[in-house]
Amino acid sequence: MSAAPASSLSAPAAPAVAPTPLMGAALAERFAEVRAFTERLVEPLSPEDCVVQPMPDASPAKWHLAHTTWFFEAFLLKPYLSKYQVFHPKFGFLFNSYYNALGPRHARAARGMLTRPSLEEVFDYRAHVDRHMAELLDQNESAETARLIEVGLNHEQQHQELLLTDIKYTLWRNPLRPAYREGMSNDECRMTNVEGGGDKPPSSFVIRHSSFTQFDEGLYHVGRDTGVFCYDNEQPRHRVWREAFELADRPVTCGEWAAFIEDGGYRRAELWLSAGWAAVQREGWEAPLYWERNKDGEWRTFTLAGMAPIDPAEPVCHVNYYEADAFARWAALSEPGLRLPTEQEWEIAADAAGFDPAAGDVADRGRFHPSAPAPGSGSDGGPRGLAGGVWEWTASPYVAYPGYAPPAGALGEYNGKFMCDQWVLRGGSCATSATHLRATYRNFFPADARWQFSGLRLAR
Amino acid sequence: MSAAPASSLSAPAAPAVAPTPLMGAALAERFAEVRAFTERLVEPLSPEDCVVQPMPDASPAKWHLAHTTWFFEAFLLKPYLSKYQVFHPKFGFLFNSYYNALGPRHARAARGMLTRPSLEEVFDYRAHVDRHMAELLDQNESAETARLIEVGLNHEQQHQELLLTDIKYTLWRNPLRPAYREGMSNDECRMTNVEGGGDKPPSSFVIRHSSFTQFDEGLYHVGRDTGVFCYDNEQPRHRVWREAFELADRPVTCGEWAAFIEDGGYRRAELWLSAGWAAVQREGWEAPLYWERNKDGEWRTFTLAGMAPIDPAEPVCHVNYYEADAFARWAALSEPGLRLPTEQEWEIAADAAGFDPAAGDVADRGRFHPSAPAPGSGSDGGPRGLAGGVWEWTASPYVAYPGYAPPAGALGEYNGKFMCDQWVLRGGSCATSATHLRATYRNFFPADARWQFSGLRLAR
Amino acid sequence: MSAAPASSLSAPAAPAVAPTPLMGAALAERFAEVRAFTERLVEPLSPEDCVVQPMPDASPAKWHLAHTTWFFEAFLLKPYLSKYQVFHPKFGFLFNSYYNALGPRHARAARGMLTRPSLEEVFDYRAHVDRHMAELLDQNESAETARLIEVGLNHEQQHQELLLTDIKYTLWRNPLRPAYREGMSNDECRMTNVEGGGDKPPSSFVIRHSSFTQFDEGLYHVGRDTGVFCYDNEQPRHRVWREAFELADRPVTCGEWAAFIEDGGYRRAELWLSAGWAAVQREGWEAPLYWERNKDGEWRTFTLAGMAPIDPAEPVCHVNYYEADAFARWAALSEPGLRLPTEQEWEIAADAAGFDPAAGDVADRGRFHPSAPAPGSGSDGGPRGLAGGVWEWTASPYVAYPGYAPPAGALGEYNGKFMCDQWVLRGGSCATSATHLRATYRNFFPADARWQFSGLRLAR
Amino acid sequence: MSAAPASSLSAPAAPAVAPTPLMGAALAERFAEVRAFTERLVEPLSPEDCVVQPMPDASPAKWHLAHTTWFFEAFLLKPYLSKYQVFHPKFGFLFNSYYNALGPRHARAARGMLTRPSLEEVFDYRAHVDRHMAELLDQNESAETARLIEVGLNHEQQHQELLLTDIKYTLWRNPLRPAYREGMSNDECRMTNVEGGGDKPPSSFVIRHSSFTQFDEGLYHVGRDTGVFCYDNEQPRHRVWREAFELADRPVTCGEWAAFIEDGGYRRAELWLSAGWAAVQREGWEAPLYWERNKDGEWRTFTLAGMAPIDPAEPVCHVNYYEADAFARWAALSEPGLRLPTEQEWEIAADAAGFDPAAGDVADRGRFHPSAPAPGSGSDGGPRGLAGGVWEWTASPYVAYPGYAPPAGALGEYNGKFMCDQWVLRGGSCATSATHLRATYRNFFPADARWQFSGLRLAR
Repeated sequence: MSAAPASSLSAPAAPAVAPTPLMGAALAERFAEVRAFTERLVEPLSPEDCVVQPMPDASPAKWHLAHTTWFFEAFLLKPYLSKYQVFHPKFGFLFNSYYNALGPRHARAARGMLTRPSLEEVFDYRAHVDRHMAELLDQNESAETARLIEVGLNHEQQHQELLLTDIKYTLWRNPLRPAYREGMSNDECRMTNVEGGGDKPPSSFVIRHSSFTQFDEGLYHVGRDTGVFCYDNEQPRHRVWREAFELADRPVTCGEWAAFIEDGGYRRAELWLSAGWAAVQREGWEAPLYWERNKDGEWRTFTLAGMAPIDPAEPVCHVNYYEADAFARWAALSEPGLRLPTEQEWEIAADAAGFDPAAGDVADRGRFHPSAPAPGSGSDGGPRGLAGGVWEWTASPYVAYPGYAPPAGALGEYNGKFMCDQWVLRGGSCATSATHLRATYRNFFPADARWQFSGLRLAR
Repeated sequence: MSAAPASSLSAPAAPAVAPTPLMGAALAERFAEVRAFTERLVEPLSPEDCVVQPMPDASPAKWHLAHTTWFFEAFLLKPYLSKYQVFHPKFGFLFNSYYNALGPRHARAARGMLTRPSLEEVFDYRAHVDRHMAELLDQNESAETARLIEVGLNHEQQHQELLLTDIKYTLWRNPLRPAYREGMSNDECRMTNVEGGGDKPPSSFVIRHSSFTQFDEGLYHVGRDTGVFCYDNEQPRHRVWREAFELADRPVTCGEWAAFIEDGGYRRAELWLSAGWAAVQREGWEAPLYWERNKDGEWRTFTLAGMAPIDPAEPVCHVNYYEADAFARWAALSEPGLRLPTEQEWEIAADAAGFDPAAGDVADRGRFHPSAPAPGSGSDGGPRGLAGGVWEWTASPYVAYPGYAPPAGALGEYNGKFMCDQWVLRGGSCATSATHLRATYRNFFPADARWQFSGLRLAR
Repeated sequence: MSAAPASSLSAPAAPAVAPTPLMGAALAERFAEVRAFTERLVEPLSPEDCVVQPMPDASPAKWHLAHTTWFFEAFLLKPYLSKYQVFHPKFGFLFNSYYNALGPRHARAARGMLTRPSLEEVFDYRAHVDRHMAELLDQNESAETARLIEVGLNHEQQHQELLLTDIKYTLWRNPLRPAYREGMSNDECRMTNVEGGGDKPPSSFVIRHSSFTQFDEGLYHVGRDTGVFCYDNEQPRHRVWREAFELADRPVTCGEWAAFIEDGGYRRAELWLSAGWAAVQREGWEAPLYWERNKDGEWRTFTLAGMAPIDPAEPVCHVNYYEADAFARWAALSEPGLRLPTEQEWEIAADAAGFDPAAGDVADRGRFHPSAPAPGSGSDGGPRGLAGGVWEWTASPYVAYPGYAPPAGALGEYNGKFMCDQWVLRGGSCATSATHLRATYRNFFPADARWQFSGLRLAR
Repeated sequence: MSAAPASSLSAPAAPAVAPTPLMGAALAERFAEVRAFTERLVEPLSPEDCVVQPMPDASPAKWHLAHTTWFFEAFLLKPYLSKYQVFHPKFGFLFNSYYNALGPRHARAARGMLTRPSLEEVFDYRAHVDRHMAELLDQNESAETARLIEVGLNHEQQHQELLLTDIKYTLWRNPLRPAYREGMSNDECRMTNVEGGGDKPPSSFVIRHSSFTQFDEGLYHVGRDTGVFCYDNEQPRHRVWREAFELADRPVTCGEWAAFIEDGGYRRAELWLSAGWAAVQREGWEAPLYWERNKDGEWRTFTLAGMAPIDPAEPVCHVNYYEADAFARWAALSEPGLRLPTEQEWEIAADAAGFDPAAGDVADRGRFHPSAPAPGSGSDGGPRGLAGGVWEWTASPYVAYPGYAPPAGALGEYNGKFMCDQWVLRGGSCATSATHLRATYRNFFPADARWQFSGLRLAR
């Protein structure tokens, strides 16, 4: 397969009009669906599960429930629904996340202190806001509010994924290693997988099942233009020059990662970025987050169904940028040129190969654990598993696209102010909803973050 | 009033036999009472309230419920009830507090991570252990087990007080400043107080209502001898020489503390211990814990019934040793010689004046906020409010009594290993049960601890 | 002025041969010059000045003297001079900076503990190594050693600049605010400056003297190809696509910065990156490093000649990336589109405008404080002051160029392992030697670093 | 030997007059001696050695030289010598240690930043102050100034010892482990020692050479009364009741400590205070400070003459309170009742046995390393080595004596404000001057301090 760059690419035109958002009944339906999915995610959880904050970077489930609701209250109901009364005068303080423009707020690291309001009261809050949002949708709908609602729903979908990653971390900090849902089994959490079943970790690194797709040099368009919703950080669409490159047809697997560990991956300074090596030594990392050896020395991992053996064919997950980078350097020892792709390369490949979240290993499946991607159906193979499964670290720091300017007002704080010392991940994970994903979507986390469903794919 | 030291005091005889503990039905009844009181304390709390740990030094209510239960399982049921099966194989790990002799344990600062077991399961655990304790009391009772049960019940009473201080701190960390019990009012939390009602803080320091009781120099006995239960750190009873001294008839009040603040108490380095002054500057202390000024500059304080105005006649509470010491130095500027009493002076006075917890401002009253002590009934006045109200900081570091040796086995870790860089408090508080207190009781906390119901009384 | 991109740019050819390094007498002369300059820099300093480490990121002057010498010993004399005996068996441990491949080393933060060897002994060490380097130059010279010597000399020039920035920081931490050189005056440290003399900070932001040079869109070459020495991180030369842009003709000045401060620059969250705002609040930054207000509220700054008034026309210096970014956002409020340039834009402009370090405000002048750049001589103006003065922060994170691979061996640790969470600065400063600079030179520091001679220039 | 307590001890009378201080020529001579000794201590040191601060608790030698000089300037010359001009207007800020009453001061942890003033300038400062002190002694002498000078000289003697402990720590932080004085040998640093020569560490704990002296129960006087100089914290003299006790005739030795290590002393939680055990695990302590095993597993220790083998007969040194306490608990396993003495017991024993610093292992000998105490000459044996050698940790927290009040003015900050969470050490060390010591002298350090010449002696 080969993507064809335009030989003479003109600058993207400025969109004549903003994209037409969903409106009317379609929007109301989507609103109901997204809101309901959040609540379905906490169904298996007790009020106790929902209140605890396991580390400063993670938030309690109750906080996610309330914060996503506050978003609609602050950005829609207060400005656009006349005579709207806030549910509680202090909730704006408690559930604002980081919008300086909307006033002071509760300290992020103290979100776990909020035993009150109770989970039940937070559900009342949600019902109150949903009721008034219905009123707004009924009476005051405009392209402007429709666009803001779209932001709010995407925002809530982001928090759905965070809710899952955060509760996974919370449950793992409990020495009992409990499952997220009573009776949830690892079979349920995993698909049977023909390709990788029963494989032992290879004793030396071989990208056995991996092949690479070629892409030609050329001037490409990157970023989102018009048409459908996207975040500000995906814009403006712009031209980039890429030399020819190749992208692996699937993410790096647990079996390959076990080989990296066996080969001393976590003990060889020469494989690591300087800051990564310092972190390895300080934190004592010896494997991805959630991996533990049992008494027989076999690797097991914590999933939302509890502890389970490693499946060598599954994509490796819960590695951070330092680890992804070190793995790529290690792989390059066997096969020079292997490396992480840039986010531009990733997007060019996704554009060419097609990016179909609905067919991906996404949250809609309800399993929340990455599976080995199914073999491609086409003759050319092409990259598989781009949508869902694991977020894929790229070699690209998270910075503004040329010409980017944050929108005016509080929503300008949504993305722009985090463009410093974070790295872009692409493609979505098994905890992301299909309707939330796009080929141009830019997720970002600091180099040391491990608690997301993050893996990697090689390029060369 | 004057206490009469023996002119020629002989050394305390070694107790011929250990004290006879409660046994039989009386013990069973006390067991039931103490256990039930713990559960009554959490009745107003939600499962969410019970799981959160607001700081490393405090523990979740659920943990207190389970840990006190584990104590009986570990020290009574496992060694003394044949065929006893532990309720859960991991609870020994989860709910051991600090007994190295009993194996590894969950990290203290991570007690708030335990969303599972649920509060309900912990109540099941309590019921399971109570049921088997009834069996033990029925079948295997001996002086040895009776003594251990006595320890276990006193241990649980200590945790009842900690449960209250810890939940108070938890609720206060919530910006909503919620009350412990729905509908609890500050009227309920406080007694009407004839003496201090409506007083404004005096503009200069006057110990107006305070008078002092004299005690003669002499050789006194200090510490507990035989007869009733006490902790190892109250023993052995021994002789001490005290010069004549006087003790104030009541604790320092909120009104006096407000005067200290007004007079720059928290801004004058010369009043503070060096480490105390460093802490004041680092932490920004300007008043006791839980005191806040409202918009009009009036002091309010957080109680278990929510925020309430300061009552100038009440004993000041939630001050640490540094603050108590600074206050005493400040008081001595007006009246040279004023200082904190030593724990020996305190005990000599309590011996002479009588120490009657049942009549004190104790947890049994269910108000959990200190009241101004009632005026003494006798003509001489004598120290009032020694039992209950607020724990009173003394000028005595917490060290071993002459001849002290910790008991053998895991219980040897109960007290002895903490005899370093802590200070003795005496007398009990409004959150201590009457049956838990004795004139010889030695409580201890580090110099910077403020979240206990701790105040002070002056001597000279 | 307009730079002309190739309309159809072919991929840079792989260099047929490595660049021909300096050799023979020319190399020996350069060796002697560079080494002597280092020693001249410490002439004004006492042994006491040279031993202290003022913060973990800075190093003592004595350490710089020894480490640069160790570099020649480790990379040249040990491998290439037969029978060479190291000067001291422990110096390899003491003076290795960060080369894991060369064994364990003294902790970076403890470099200030080395009162021994004395400064005098370190000079003996330098003489010993220089003597043997002369032998090597005489007898064993090859293209390979010549290239390594070139690296060693550039390495030493980097440390010359660090020595100056570190000693400036050391002297500033002394409440006496002493000058680097006895009798050094601020007149000596500064050029008379026609343009900015006597200016008061403007009360509102006006880039009065600033004009912009335009550059066309196109495919450009970036990075160094062949011919002269460069670091690995400047390679490979590669093609990039740039949209049209404009670059300011001079760096941002102290006067403009004072206006930014006056306008609340350090108190407005909306101007800052999220991590930058957190740092401002944590560190209490209110102005660039070394700026202090005197009693009359006038800004003064610490220079190597001591405290001096701010000159509004001088380039602002000692600001970090967060500050540079916040300034650019603030400037864009007045004039939309203003921003920091990318490093590619900067290099394209420098290529077009000419980059002449010898004519720049560089260390060779011996003043070590940036001056306002002289007006351009040409009719078109063009960007002035690109070489020297202040390092200019760019909007580019420091990452590998496409196709970059670190060299084999210990020198592979020189640059590559730091390509994470740092930002590129371009152009050199008043503390950089002219012979060390190139238009393709990539300096890099973390976003919070302020002690370098770092400023900024705007683009749009 | 037996000390005889008074059967009926009357309260110490208040001293009618303050003690008569040294005056006139005798005082001038003592002034000259003490000041000269300080300067002799830094003779072997380079300016570089004198400027570095190896940890926040230690100070640079140059700072000690200047601070002790500032003391005379601040407390004598400024108030008592008319028309005195301070040497430098900022030295008061730089060299005040902790006297809040004398204004703000340079941060303690930043004392190592002062490369200027140079060591030479500090010597000029000393000469300037000495010259004016001579003037003051000549013209303005009074009992009041004589008493302040006495304080200043004792203060300087304290800093002489700190200068030695701090420079020892500084030199040890250097991986070269240099000696304090060129050519200083461990032979010079140690006396030949008949008793312990060649001993190997015993494989099980035997206090072989140790015997105990008995002291009867009774009412004793403790603290200093009148007559000679003492610090405020040694006063008032007061009565204490002590039960009968016994004190070991010599300090614990290195041989005994090696046995403690071999027996798992640093790995057995049950031997340690809770805070001590936490510190052992956090810091990784496995032996006293400065002990290191060589390749053959033999213990060596750092002395001011460099690294040297352990001498089993020498008093163990550089242990902190936690370690001393753990050792005593371990010793009590073999011989119940062994423990650390209280400071009162120590003083009673020293009173009875005689306390003769001039004959002790003190700084005047110039060796600065403890030797095994010579056997007692008398028939009864009695405690040896009480004066000098190593400071002996006692079981007594450092608190005020009954009736203690700090003096008015800045000197009131000398001792009183440190009476919190520190422990008393008695007797002096090999780094203390003989004329500085008294039986009533109370030294004090926190429980984790190891860099002083601190050891222990057992009681029972």
